[in-house]
Amino acid sequence: MSNDKIGARLAQDPLPEIQNCIYAPLLANVNPDDFADMLAVNGAHLVMLHDCRLMPTARAATLAKALLSMAAEGQEDPAVIDPRTEDGYFAFELRLGRMVGAHEAGFLHLARSRNDIGATLDRLRAARLALTIMSALNRVRTLCLSQAEKYAEVIMPGYTHLQPAQPITFGFLLAGYAESLARDYQRLAEVWPRLVQGSMGAAALAGSSFPIDRQRTAALLGQEGVTHNSLDTVASRDFATELLYAVTQLSLTWGRVAQDFHTFSSDEFAIIGFPDSVAGTSSIMPQKKNPFALEFLRAESARLVGVLTGTLSAIRSTHFTVSLDAIREGLMDLWPALARAAQDLGLFAQVIATVEPRAKLMLQRCYGNFSTVTELADRLVKDHQLSFREAHHLVGLVVRLALEEGKDASQITAQAVNRAAVDMLGRELPIDDAWVSETLDPARAVRGRTHSGGTAPATIRQALAAARRQLELDEQRLTERQQHKAAATQALQTALETLAAERD
Amino acid sequence: MSNDKIGARLAQDPLPEIQNCIYAPLLANVNPDDFADMLAVNGAHLVMLHDCRLMPTARAATLAKALLSMAAEGQEDPAVIDPRTEDGYFAFELRLGRMVGAHEAGFLHLARSRNDIGATLDRLRAARLALTIMSALNRVRTLCLSQAEKYAEVIMPGYTHLQPAQPITFGFLLAGYAESLARDYQRLAEVWPRLVQGSMGAAALAGSSFPIDRQRTAALLGQEGVTHNSLDTVASRDFATELLYAVTQLSLTWGRVAQDFHTFSSDEFAIIGFPDSVAGTSSIMPQKKNPFALEFLRAESARLVGVLTGTLSAIRSTHFTVSLDAIREGLMDLWPALARAAQDLGLFAQVIATVEPRAKLMLQRCYGNFSTVTELADRLVKDHQLSFREAHHLVGLVVRLALEEGKDASQITAQAVNRAAVDMLGRELPIDDAWVSETLDPARAVRGRTHSGGTAPATIRQALAAARRQLELDEQRLTERQQHKAAATQALQTALETLAAERD
Amino acid sequence: MSNDKIGARLAQDPLPEIQNCIYAPLLANVNPDDFADMLAVNGAHLVMLHDCRLMPTARAATLAKALLSMAAEGQEDPAVIDPRTEDGYFAFELRLGRMVGAHEAGFLHLARSRNDIGATLDRLRAARLALTIMSALNRVRTLCLSQAEKYAEVIMPGYTHLQPAQPITFGFLLAGYAESLARDYQRLAEVWPRLVQGSMGAAALAGSSFPIDRQRTAALLGQEGVTHNSLDTVASRDFATELLYAVTQLSLTWGRVAQDFHTFSSDEFAIIGFPDSVAGTSSIMPQKKNPFALEFLRAESARLVGVLTGTLSAIRSTHFTVSLDAIREGLMDLWPALARAAQDLGLFAQVIATVEPRAKLMLQRCYGNFSTVTELADRLVKDHQLSFREAHHLVGLVVRLALEEGKDASQITAQAVNRAAVDMLGRELPIDDAWVSETLDPARAVRGRTHSGGTAPATIRQALAAARRQLELDEQRLTERQQHKAAATQALQTALETLAAERD
Amino acid sequence: MSNDKIGARLAQDPLPEIQNCIYAPLLANVNPDDFADMLAVNGAHLVMLHDCRLMPTARAATLAKALLSMAAEGQEDPAVIDPRTEDGYFAFELRLGRMVGAHEAGFLHLARSRNDIGATLDRLRAARLALTIMSALNRVRTLCLSQAEKYAEVIMPGYTHLQPAQPITFGFLLAGYAESLARDYQRLAEVWPRLVQGSMGAAALAGSSFPIDRQRTAALLGQEGVTHNSLDTVASRDFATELLYAVTQLSLTWGRVAQDFHTFSSDEFAIIGFPDSVAGTSSIMPQKKNPFALEFLRAESARLVGVLTGTLSAIRSTHFTVSLDAIREGLMDLWPALARAAQDLGLFAQVIATVEPRAKLMLQRCYGNFSTVTELADRLVKDHQLSFREAHHLVGLVVRLALEEGKDASQITAQAVNRAAVDMLGRELPIDDAWVSETLDPARAVRGRTHSGGTAPATIRQALAAARRQLELDEQRLTERQQHKAAATQALQTALETLAAERD
Repeated sequence: MSNDKIGARLAQDPLPEIQNCIYAPLLANVNPDDFADMLAVNGAHLVMLHDCRLMPTARAATLAKALLSMAAEGQEDPAVIDPRTEDGYFAFELRLGRMVGAHEAGFLHLARSRNDIGATLDRLRAARLALTIMSALNRVRTLCLSQAEKYAEVIMPGYTHLQPAQPITFGFLLAGYAESLARDYQRLAEVWPRLVQGSMGAAALAGSSFPIDRQRTAALLGQEGVTHNSLDTVASRDFATELLYAVTQLSLTWGRVAQDFHTFSSDEFAIIGFPDSVAGTSSIMPQKKNPFALEFLRAESARLVGVLTGTLSAIRSTHFTVSLDAIREGLMDLWPALARAAQDLGLFAQVIATVEPRAKLMLQRCYGNFSTVTELADRLVKDHQLSFREAHHLVGLVVRLALEEGKDASQITAQAVNRAAVDMLGRELPIDDAWVSETLDPARAVRGRTHSGGTAPATIRQALAAARRQLELDEQRLTERQQHKAAATQALQTALETLAAERD
Repeated sequence: MSNDKIGARLAQDPLPEIQNCIYAPLLANVNPDDFADMLAVNGAHLVMLHDCRLMPTARAATLAKALLSMAAEGQEDPAVIDPRTEDGYFAFELRLGRMVGAHEAGFLHLARSRNDIGATLDRLRAARLALTIMSALNRVRTLCLSQAEKYAEVIMPGYTHLQPAQPITFGFLLAGYAESLARDYQRLAEVWPRLVQGSMGAAALAGSSFPIDRQRTAALLGQEGVTHNSLDTVASRDFATELLYAVTQLSLTWGRVAQDFHTFSSDEFAIIGFPDSVAGTSSIMPQKKNPFALEFLRAESARLVGVLTGTLSAIRSTHFTVSLDAIREGLMDLWPALARAAQDLGLFAQVIATVEPRAKLMLQRCYGNFSTVTELADRLVKDHQLSFREAHHLVGLVVRLALEEGKDASQITAQAVNRAAVDMLGRELPIDDAWVSETLDPARAVRGRTHSGGTAPATIRQALAAARRQLELDEQRLTERQQHKAAATQALQTALETLAAERD
Repeated sequence: MSNDKIGARLAQDPLPEIQNCIYAPLLANVNPDDFADMLAVNGAHLVMLHDCRLMPTARAATLAKALLSMAAEGQEDPAVIDPRTEDGYFAFELRLGRMVGAHEAGFLHLARSRNDIGATLDRLRAARLALTIMSALNRVRTLCLSQAEKYAEVIMPGYTHLQPAQPITFGFLLAGYAESLARDYQRLAEVWPRLVQGSMGAAALAGSSFPIDRQRTAALLGQEGVTHNSLDTVASRDFATELLYAVTQLSLTWGRVAQDFHTFSSDEFAIIGFPDSVAGTSSIMPQKKNPFALEFLRAESARLVGVLTGTLSAIRSTHFTVSLDAIREGLMDLWPALARAAQDLGLFAQVIATVEPRAKLMLQRCYGNFSTVTELADRLVKDHQLSFREAHHLVGLVVRLALEEGKDASQITAQAVNRAAVDMLGRELPIDDAWVSETLDPARAVRGRTHSGGTAPATIRQALAAARRQLELDEQRLTERQQHKAAATQALQTALETLAAERD
Repeated sequence: MSNDKIGARLAQDPLPEIQNCIYAPLLANVNPDDFADMLAVNGAHLVMLHDCRLMPTARAATLAKALLSMAAEGQEDPAVIDPRTEDGYFAFELRLGRMVGAHEAGFLHLARSRNDIGATLDRLRAARLALTIMSALNRVRTLCLSQAEKYAEVIMPGYTHLQPAQPITFGFLLAGYAESLARDYQRLAEVWPRLVQGSMGAAALAGSSFPIDRQRTAALLGQEGVTHNSLDTVASRDFATELLYAVTQLSLTWGRVAQDFHTFSSDEFAIIGFPDSVAGTSSIMPQKKNPFALEFLRAESARLVGVLTGTLSAIRSTHFTVSLDAIREGLMDLWPALARAAQDLGLFAQVIATVEPRAKLMLQRCYGNFSTVTELADRLVKDHQLSFREAHHLVGLVVRLALEEGKDASQITAQAVNRAAVDMLGRELPIDDAWVSETLDPARAVRGRTHSGGTAPATIRQALAAARRQLELDEQRLTERQQHKAAATQALQTALETLAAERD
């Protein structure tokens, strides 16, 4: 048995299968950010132990110096770590032991356990990823709002069921995406207060018998307050699953945008275009310009649904305590999925930034595709006192007859309307072709919807202004959070350096 | 073609397959609460149209009277509705037409569409279900806290990995559950502001060309403010999916409690019991008392994971607009799942209310199962200056030797400790059997964890007091929401009655 | 406590919450087919008990007569059953007891348990649903093949990444769907042998102490052979989950077809159409003809993914034995999902049966959209000895230049090709406009792909002939299965009538 | 723009976001086995082109030599590949171009496309993984059967709902697991025929205009026959998703075994044990021996459910053609999940190989826990002509009274039975204590279940013998498949070497 072994309870080395399946992936997954978190957790614990007089100054100074050295040297190469070491914490303690002696290193694990360390590392990691994702999302929102502003008057067909429904503008569509993304952001932001609670001191599950100061450790880690029940603290990772859910829900928005743009950029729709830099080639068909970014974003969204499902499934059936499925292996796909999501938002930002509407074709379609006939019905109600349902029936008949004759919307005449009116109401209406063509003008239809939420460009601009104000508030609060974290990191560094200097 | 048909665009009746697969389930699923919502939406729209002078008083009075009659008569039997009617809205309009004539009825659909009506009905339904679920959850939280108070001093083994780890109390365990449920509640509560925004007036996707007052309609429905982009309004149901997620996450908590209790109530654990009223029988094994409620709660949690997955999958790939998969058929399993969840919480409440710890056996186990040996390690550090890792190794050896000799924790002596000490440290420690047995006393271990989050009964009680304060605040806010909704319902009723009286 | 109670072990009635959450839904879900299965299971068990001399003839005759009466009377109204009855089996035994006395009825439960009855009912139900689904699927396959035959020469753009790629025919597309559906059928068919094994006699989990004949019971139920381990028999429902998976995978095929047709029938693509009978109307936009059937089919596929996930999640974490989540409540969404799938296939059949290609527009698109330029590259290789990659580059350049000049594929000239050739190869190629336009002829491209799997109409027809032969074999085997089941049902009926007559 | 670019259609380099998100992961994921597949696909295509006289011998010889050199040199370091290269195929072609000149290399891409290459690589990879998984699964089955044989007579409590139900043996339990695993194997094996069809020649989606021989290419790759429709061939990956499903369903079996063993090895159950080598330590609790392997296996099963869900979700909504979500990025989690599953089976094998029943305690529990009282009911029916339901009630009462008096099953006397008999039947039964204690003997109960599927050791051994015969057949067929593949690999190598030698 290895001399390095942390525990003496087990008489045998773990099987190769356990090392390969369980320990090796854990050790391989540690990245420099995770290592920095590990140092922070140990540093904060050390400072707290010393502050609470649970460790004499000389020993604390030795350990502080060792931690500072380790930070300077950087992360160990995972490839050189014996997989029997089990995980990142044991690897850390062994390395510390090689620096200061196993006896001294052994004092640092007082009043804590891998369970609260694990919970704390997960919280720090989730917070890091949350800030990155929120920041990347706000970049998308910013782009979306500025593009919406730019294209607020570019008239295009609005679709329901992928059928032309009523004219809207490309800016209105983008403003709609931005609304959805704003809610996605809100959900992410709401996770924060549950995410930044301190979990050190929960120890294995019952807390510690030493008179520790949990608030102090938490503050040194940039956390706000501490959790209230040690068992819940080590057993629960809902802060991570709710973050994952918020990201998955966000990915539904980006997936739907991708679906829109994928169809809109087809040869047949052709109402938007992208520069070559966001497309891919074919190895055989020389004409192809494949919308890889859009298909990729859709795929990523599906992967997130899968990871959410797998993670919830893993946790669902566990006891309310620590087990690998509840807190570690059950979340193996969650962490890389969150990291990928931040990257995906970068790609999504490019999609929003580079999309180009083809305004002329968009408008031309609106004239032909019957998307303004609701206007006709509305105006029959307003100007000619039909009930809405009568007007709707009448116009439905007008459309049916036009289609049967191979005509499009621009070819609807007063006569055609009156043919339907006679059939349905038994009388002609006092309308002429000018009234009809004015009514069917897409620009008029778009301009006329001025109430809150409507398509009129001025209304869109009002909505965009409100959205920008909200985005600024969100950005400001996000910056405060980043600054709070940076300040805590600096304060911890100073505390460690002060402690390390005690001995010199 | 049916005379009853709402639209005149289509020349043929829908196929029987469409009627059976799509329309019939929709019509069958309408329940009295949904019908009341439909009346409210129409009533509020009517009052707004009249207020905005978009409908003359006489017509509005006729329609108001008809709506009040319909409310008095109650919901139509779904079985008698022709499935060609498509859905609840068309059924409503046809029924209204039979009461006041199709011409008059047709005026009510001015400045709206099935799309904004559908979005609004979904919001009202989601709000109803959210209030019911939150209320049921608070009942569970109340029970959990009072049971935790009652059993705050009942010592039991605390487990990690289902292995006895350290002694805790049954109250501490229940307090942990309550913490988790409090976060589950928070998540539910956070959905609310996004849920109660008004969506009437978004019409098909672009808003209406009539000068409507969306805020007025929303207020009459008890909603707070209105949505900002009509397309987003009709295309998005994230208020429903995030509610579903919050409920699914909550079900993970109840599932984990069920998992705990299922194992704890086994013949072998036997540390808790339930009255016969929460168990089931066997048809063949006369001795059986099966924990049906617990298995049911676990299954419900899995079903929720499935419904969440299915719903997200349906929406994920849709265009950002109205389509059946994005807004209606894709959510077919969501609505009954939310309704079931409210019921499930009632069952969960009974589980919490009726669980009985077997205190004597719990304590007895703590004496034997080595769950207090962390105390031994801690105290070797405190009293005898070992480093924690040394103490941990030493005690690990003590345990291994005891197990090899078939002894349990209560049989550990000072001699046994010193045998390990000699082996590991090369010297004996100045301890005696009294010190050892005092150290291994579970009650002492539990009492000693006094910091925030610890197991000491007084600490638990402090945490419970804080949890109760939070619960009271939550309850108060929930009551306000319920009252706000009730007041709006009453105001709408009054407005309709006033309008109906105009003509008399 | 109810006199009707089946067990005497529990001293209390179940709580109302248990009755409402657990028992009531179970009792409500029993349909006439399930009731027929319940009678069959009891009938077969009775005949077997009598055959094995485990029950005297007089008693067996009494019970046989009662079963026949019950069959004649039909299913009890679920609404009148006391929910304390727990489930369909207890309701059955109580009803039998009311007919022949509880003493006599009590003899029928010899050598069995609700566990093996439950497993058997699930197997019979799964077999029923599997046959229905397979039959409905074969109808879709038949339609798909005949439509493919009909449209084997209708040239259309083939897409990859929704970009025009190479010309194919509409029949080739439909033949592709049919291939996918044939594999879907194969998977369903492979479930069968695992589905039809007999499970009666496994009793609670350990088998029975009576000398029963399990093969006899199985044969009377139309099953083939019996399961080999009683615990596995009552604990496992993988026959149901694999059926669900096969159906879910099948729904991916129909969902992709729906996605194709949804886009192809858009106003912009417009290359296929449907009769009004498969579309829905709008309540406000008179021109709309919404592709409800297609969106519904997509939604159904997502729901199936959700049900599969939920069911696997429920079972995943259970002990390898009977528990509600493993065998009953965990499968609550599975059974209706399978029933819906059979209906959905009926709708899908209509979609396939009614789709109409717009051949003229399809062909016109192929001339313009560059989908034949791979031909150009291929022929440069064949006729002019370029390497494929050179030809591909050269044609890519031709396309880029054409697009920059706003030209479509029909406007590519020999000169344009040579402009690129000079740029890339430094020389002109000996080609003329006739060679270019012949090369870019879509019909020629389609006809030229004559190897197995290619688009040439004759090749398609060969593939269709092979597919039809496979379908006929599948149909024949399916018919045999249906006949085998019908014969067993008849034999059981005869056996029961013979037994019932013993006493007269 | 890079000179290396494969296509000339796009005027710009891909964005860094596309390179990082899409191309870099693809290039990084290629492993040596994938590289060998890439060489095989190119080698087989080359030999076929030469055989079909689509390439002159000299050129074919040059390319064959280059492929053999590449095989000798091994895979390129993914880190050095420019991410603009898009994917493994382009990287391959560029490398080949560096060896033989881009002109010569360009001839190899004749009559194919990345689409059929991608489908073929996926099929080869899936086949490789399937063989590995099946082989690993058979090792588990072998161990399970031999352990079942070894412990066929070790009596233990059988559980339903985790309550002691009836005595079984540990061998019977393991035989039950083996049955479930045998079905899991069958499902995997059934995927095979759909997996090994040749897909080269489908080209982009429509087949090739060159007179290729698809059967020849397939045979050189060890495939059996070819697919029938080129569009379906490039668009469908159901061979991979059905393999994933089969593995996920298999993981449910291992997850349930893990759940059993996790509970059974708890301190309270303590009826099985494991060597230290399959357990993990605690960093703080010296007594802990945590069942990491079991929790890991449960987590892996949940991850598989998630990957299945994510993959089906990705594919579900795509067009029936090539798109990243349908065929590549949508399957990004599938491939590593399959690779992990093979590893997990190795760990599962160790769990089965090392589990040790604690026979004495198991038997002791059976005497006390009422699990034999069904015997009492059965024997009251057999020996004393009660109906089963009467006997069941009577024994239920006996148990209830015993529990109320704090007695266990071994303390049931004839007097106790008769107390219930008088209460229920109004009379005593002619039984004595010897009859009662003989009836309640667990060994007798186990031995008495001799029908097919029962617990009698001889019956178990018969079932095991049948299972072993099946396993041998499965092994034999698997070996044949492995040999067929190895022979094809050898034949391809010989063909390439022959071709390469043509020029020397």
